[in-house]
Amino acid sequence: MKTENRSHCPITFALDLFGDKWSLLILRDILFKNKKYYQEFSKSEEGIATNILADRLLKLENNGFITKTKDETNKKQNIYSPTKKSQDLIPMLVEMIAWSAQYDPKTGVPPKIKKQLIHDKNGYIKQVMAKTAGS
Amino acid sequence: MKTENRSHCPITFALDLFGDKWSLLILRDILFKNKKYYQEFSKSEEGIATNILADRLLKLENNGFITKTKDETNKKQNIYSPTKKSQDLIPMLVEMIAWSAQYDPKTGVPPKIKKQLIHDKNGYIKQVMAKTAGS
Repeated sequence: MKTENRSHCPITFALDLFGDKWSLLILRDILFKNKKYYQEFSKSEEGIATNILADRLLKLENNGFITKTKDETNKKQNIYSPTKKSQDLIPMLVEMIAWSAQYDPKTGVPPKIKKQLIHDKNGYIKQVMAKTAGS
Repeated sequence: MKTENRSHCPITFALDLFGDKWSLLILRDILFKNKKYYQEFSKSEEGIATNILADRLLKLENNGFITKTKDETNKKQNIYSPTKKSQDLIPMLVEMIAWSAQYDPKTGVPPKIKKQLIHDKNGYIKQVMAKTAGS
């Protein structure tokens, strides 16, 4: 199951893969919050419905953004890990964060990070990349 | 009419404003292709339905991404122009383009631009910014 593309415009290509209200939030949890379990994603403050979460995880897996492996310590549980393809979205996500920090008067971005985004965006990107274990 | 936000996470904030399959394509047309008329947007290769186009243009206007003015040479026509708020999305859109150029084997990004995105991304951002008339 692959997602169909409307055109090979690069913006369309990206939107057809994750241009919905939820896919990037799951990737945010994986890439920035180091979450890895279904239960962790379902507890995120935006309140994703379980059927939507299951659907998006499957799509993200089928489109090569995440891998699913059995948790060795609890075989009933899966571990979701980011691939290099999703790690490479970090610069785009950081630009998105910087933009929102500027335009959302109630932004949840802490002042210290906001300052770093203005003065040392590349440093911040490197920090997030280093913390995210790619596979 | 403002869009409601699910949280003040900066990624959620952005997605709640343009996290759908069409809004960023209209902004692409305005910011990268310098389109300004309804008819021009409706002719884009992705084939946006007119009711969706009208809805997204209104949302983009209400959320401060574009302004609508009467065309002085043809009063029946409107001109859609980008604001600084949407111009400031260019770095994020360029990161999206760079990512797609890397991961879409059939990408429409010309080899020359792809090369520039690898070696001089900031130069490319500046070029696009300079060509886009903000208001």
